[in-house]
Amino acid sequence: MAVGSATMPEHFHPVVGVRLGVASAGIKKPGRKDVVVIELAKGSRVAGIFTANQFCAAPVHVARDHLERGEPRYLLINTGNANAGTGERGMRDARACCEALAKAAQHEAHAVLPFSTGVIGEPLPVDRIVDALPQALADLSETHWPEAAAGIMTTDTRPKGSSRQLTLDGKIVNISGLSKGAGMICPNMATLLGFIATDVAIAPSVLQKLASELGEISFNRITVDGDTSTNDACMLIATGQAGVEIASVESEHYPILREALKEVFLELAHAIIRDGEGATKFVTVEVMGAAAQKEALDVAYTVAHSPLVKTALFASDPNWGRILAAVGRAGVEGLDLDAIEIYLGDVCLVRNGGRAEDYTEERGQAVMDQEEITIRIDLRRGTIEERVWTCDFSHDYVTINAEYRT
Amino acid sequence: MAVGSATMPEHFHPVVGVRLGVASAGIKKPGRKDVVVIELAKGSRVAGIFTANQFCAAPVHVARDHLERGEPRYLLINTGNANAGTGERGMRDARACCEALAKAAQHEAHAVLPFSTGVIGEPLPVDRIVDALPQALADLSETHWPEAAAGIMTTDTRPKGSSRQLTLDGKIVNISGLSKGAGMICPNMATLLGFIATDVAIAPSVLQKLASELGEISFNRITVDGDTSTNDACMLIATGQAGVEIASVESEHYPILREALKEVFLELAHAIIRDGEGATKFVTVEVMGAAAQKEALDVAYTVAHSPLVKTALFASDPNWGRILAAVGRAGVEGLDLDAIEIYLGDVCLVRNGGRAEDYTEERGQAVMDQEEITIRIDLRRGTIEERVWTCDFSHDYVTINAEYRT
Repeated sequence: MAVGSATMPEHFHPVVGVRLGVASAGIKKPGRKDVVVIELAKGSRVAGIFTANQFCAAPVHVARDHLERGEPRYLLINTGNANAGTGERGMRDARACCEALAKAAQHEAHAVLPFSTGVIGEPLPVDRIVDALPQALADLSETHWPEAAAGIMTTDTRPKGSSRQLTLDGKIVNISGLSKGAGMICPNMATLLGFIATDVAIAPSVLQKLASELGEISFNRITVDGDTSTNDACMLIATGQAGVEIASVESEHYPILREALKEVFLELAHAIIRDGEGATKFVTVEVMGAAAQKEALDVAYTVAHSPLVKTALFASDPNWGRILAAVGRAGVEGLDLDAIEIYLGDVCLVRNGGRAEDYTEERGQAVMDQEEITIRIDLRRGTIEERVWTCDFSHDYVTINAEYRT
Repeated sequence: MAVGSATMPEHFHPVVGVRLGVASAGIKKPGRKDVVVIELAKGSRVAGIFTANQFCAAPVHVARDHLERGEPRYLLINTGNANAGTGERGMRDARACCEALAKAAQHEAHAVLPFSTGVIGEPLPVDRIVDALPQALADLSETHWPEAAAGIMTTDTRPKGSSRQLTLDGKIVNISGLSKGAGMICPNMATLLGFIATDVAIAPSVLQKLASELGEISFNRITVDGDTSTNDACMLIATGQAGVEIASVESEHYPILREALKEVFLELAHAIIRDGEGATKFVTVEVMGAAAQKEALDVAYTVAHSPLVKTALFASDPNWGRILAAVGRAGVEGLDLDAIEIYLGDVCLVRNGGRAEDYTEERGQAVMDQEEITIRIDLRRGTIEERVWTCDFSHDYVTINAEYRT
């Protein structure tokens, strides 16, 4: 099941300086394309954000380390095995994969950034991955974005991509990105991988700022089940091949590029929610009128994580009492029930401490019957706004997660 | 569905000074016994703990207020309607029910403590409740504990009770209690109601201490879905009719009575988990070796709330990676993955940063196949222990909550 429109662009604009190749290592299923190599032109810069889970997986440790040492030239991604909870052996395995790719491509091992997603706690089948590398390298092409999008999927039902082309300084520049993730999706990253590349040249400090800020308002604002994965990573790549440079945030092109990148980040993040495990609804939870960012996010996430709200969404039941109860237990001191307002789409559910006087079940039901729903909570005590995205909680969520390993 | 053994005692020991009566007001279903009156002898003392939800329901406000004014003689409980999210009207409705009962029983309105559970946001059908009061008063009996246990149920599939008899100071004293709740169950109370009575005379300060302490380690340590209700309340009643008095915690009988009360509180709280919506497993999450109570509880609740852990429990899948990931995202600073140990029953899952060397799927599966499961997490950095109870997350949970109002 999946919600709404396609999660792939009609056309991926190739990003000059980026080539992608896929191969089959048979990690979980024989014949499945489960290894992806992304090659970056010399001089490319990469900025990343990683999982906040304290027990981050071996590839996260290694990718962070290699990123610090500079000059990344390859991203190596495998699905089917997360190489997490694998102790010292996991670290050796992640490094061994990097070394094998580096050797085949005649680079240093630290030029390779490793990413793994899949089952936790099983040893990584290093030999099979290494054996698949020549196939992946032979497959490298500027146009293989769709194949790579499919190659990084786990329980995803659909590949996820986003692409933009714009003109800066009279030159055509391209942005293309991939993401994956369907379960264990939560704030502060998730079992999600995101790779976004542009051929604009971007100064390292600006690149990191863009990755952090745009990751924060997109990938870090989505939640399927509140579970933060051990393996999440989002990489923003700038190859510098388009002949346009952004040296600082003062650059005249900066706001235009930031806006285009933001659209791509949001599309890729929303694609994960649309493909949330068992999702039948795409839900935006908006909190406004908050006195502080923390309270806005506490309320938004408490609503977005509530199993009772999520099962009501699945049932298309405008059960506003469950939303009200979730707001009330969000841990925000001194909330005034008489002041707050709760909306479902444009329909006011709660006002003056109870059901809005003009609310009718018919009006609520009309919104609930839609596939894309906005729950808006106005705390009416400040000016801060926050927004998170989630999906509903369905029978299929239980089925998918009760049967994942069998 | 429900887990494990019966949740009612073979015999309720009548508590001298307590009589219970039930009646049908047809609040949600015609003919259903949905109104319960508990009458307390003159001189009875009552201590209570209430929901931490900021938007607590009208009856919670009124019960708190009446409790402060002293001399409670009646508890009036209705199911089918929570009288929550009902604004000023809800307050008037709760008071009107108290006044009607007080008038019929020739007492002041503040001698009545009201409790409501059921759907949020619908006006309370005051007239029907008031009309049912004579029937409930006529039904009052020292032996109607089972009928009252059934009368306070909502989505519960089984009535819940616990009872003890002991001898203190050569005199027989009795403890009996009731609870209800199946969904919206979470720390800091839940859609749960608990009523525990003894005929021992207990000084007010001791009674409140017992209610708070025992409520904290029982009702406030259970979670079905992380949703804290607007209506929860747990009342500890001491009628003083048994001829035994506990004037202070220094009393020689205090530890004996406390232990018996603790057993009753725990049995009533566990009965709620055993009857958790859709529950097929009764799960104890034990955290030991913590440096502080907060971190022990943060870890325990993060595991107990994780939809991924709970669906794995439903599938009887020893998916220890999900437990590990939940511990890692619990927000505890400086956790050392290499130090912690995770057990499923007696089987060590995780040690030295990865899967325990002597772990086998067969051993994990043998524990998972049981109906009662303990997940033990030893953080190995302190001496604090905490324990919470939860159940698994099944298809029936979704079914129950997606269809509750239809």
